[in-house]
Amino acid sequence: MTQQHLLYEGKAKRVYRTEHPDQYIVSYKDDATAFNGEKKATILGKGELNNRISTIFFKLLNGQGIPTHFIERLSDREQLVKKVTIIPLEVVVRNIAAGSLAKRLGMAEGTQLRQAVIEFYYKNDALGDPLVNDSHIALLELATPEQLQQIQGIARKINDILQAYLLEREVVLVDFKLEFGIDTAGSILLADEISPDTCRFWDAKTQEKLDKDRFRRDLGGVEDAYKEILRRLGGEQA
Amino acid sequence: MTQQHLLYEGKAKRVYRTEHPDQYIVSYKDDATAFNGEKKATILGKGELNNRISTIFFKLLNGQGIPTHFIERLSDREQLVKKVTIIPLEVVVRNIAAGSLAKRLGMAEGTQLRQAVIEFYYKNDALGDPLVNDSHIALLELATPEQLQQIQGIARKINDILQAYLLEREVVLVDFKLEFGIDTAGSILLADEISPDTCRFWDAKTQEKLDKDRFRRDLGGVEDAYKEILRRLGGEQA
Repeated sequence: MTQQHLLYEGKAKRVYRTEHPDQYIVSYKDDATAFNGEKKATILGKGELNNRISTIFFKLLNGQGIPTHFIERLSDREQLVKKVTIIPLEVVVRNIAAGSLAKRLGMAEGTQLRQAVIEFYYKNDALGDPLVNDSHIALLELATPEQLQQIQGIARKINDILQAYLLEREVVLVDFKLEFGIDTAGSILLADEISPDTCRFWDAKTQEKLDKDRFRRDLGGVEDAYKEILRRLGGEQA
Repeated sequence: MTQQHLLYEGKAKRVYRTEHPDQYIVSYKDDATAFNGEKKATILGKGELNNRISTIFFKLLNGQGIPTHFIERLSDREQLVKKVTIIPLEVVVRNIAAGSLAKRLGMAEGTQLRQAVIEFYYKNDALGDPLVNDSHIALLELATPEQLQQIQGIARKINDILQAYLLEREVVLVDFKLEFGIDTAGSILLADEISPDTCRFWDAKTQEKLDKDRFRRDLGGVEDAYKEILRRLGGEQA
């Protein structure tokens, strides 16, 4: 399968058409952005690391019956995925207070949440990806109430699977962002990526941050943190 | 019934205990605040006007079977109400895009919404009354899912009743904020007030603002606008 035509270029990935009408190629970039694109940098090796990390997670989820867009890793930077139309919602699942939740609810970062919190953000750079509720989503017709219910159910299952898997590897899953798409048959599939760009991972013993917060907060050692996650997941390094 | 002991002083009202253990007196102040208390003023006559306007709305709703805390208007500034414990949520119902919804979703102010939008804001001055979703409300234990469902149902009914009533009086109900409380028997009652402080009212013909936005946006004629609302509702002026 080869890249044919650039369909979409996002902040961290490019999506290409292929010879197959129902399959796309996703190519992971080294670019990193934060704060709605206000902070930008290139992190050498990030694209390859995220491709490998995301591949491990998608294989895990596919194996546990979660419907995902992932087919296979093609090369250092490329994944073959099923064609989907992305639902313009960022689905955030949180186990521990951090980032915007800590601010919104006035909780100290690191507070264990009694129950997982699910949030929807409207994917819209011009509006700064605002938090939206069911009623906003219905108004904007971003998803039907049935699709929202289904997405929440899948997101909670993914949380259970990833939390358990990571804890065995001494990584705490603080929170993560998912995106879903609708395939040509109308089914909801997990799309996008699962990587230190889209998750908060803390070392279970030291609470050290092993994710994009190292970039957002200028903590240094971004690439090493991503490598450490890949190592804990048992993946080979590039 | 007489005021006994000041229980609570808010931005626009005071709440007093009475001789009756299950009844409070609410006293409407002339103070006006906006933008989370950053803007402050005294609007002479506002307390009396809001007491009269709120009384008309509560009587209307009581008459239509909506459970409210309202018992009777006692004096120019005072209402006798049932004792409730306030649920710390501002329940906002919107029919037309304005204010924070217009900003959040990038809609032009005045856009008719295809369906009413309901939002919950966590009543917390220190946090700036943030928008919260079902999941945040569950986490903070502000209300049970059943209570939330019930509140949404009552809020929609109130919207239907008020919209129809106001339209006959050539007033468009753009949006409004409700607060609910739990009485000593555990039932949910509409509490707080319904007035130009808590609703956006537009003249149906001219779209002229007849509410607190005249204060927020320095449009002048605040008291006259409140008087005009009272006049349209058929109430006598103070």
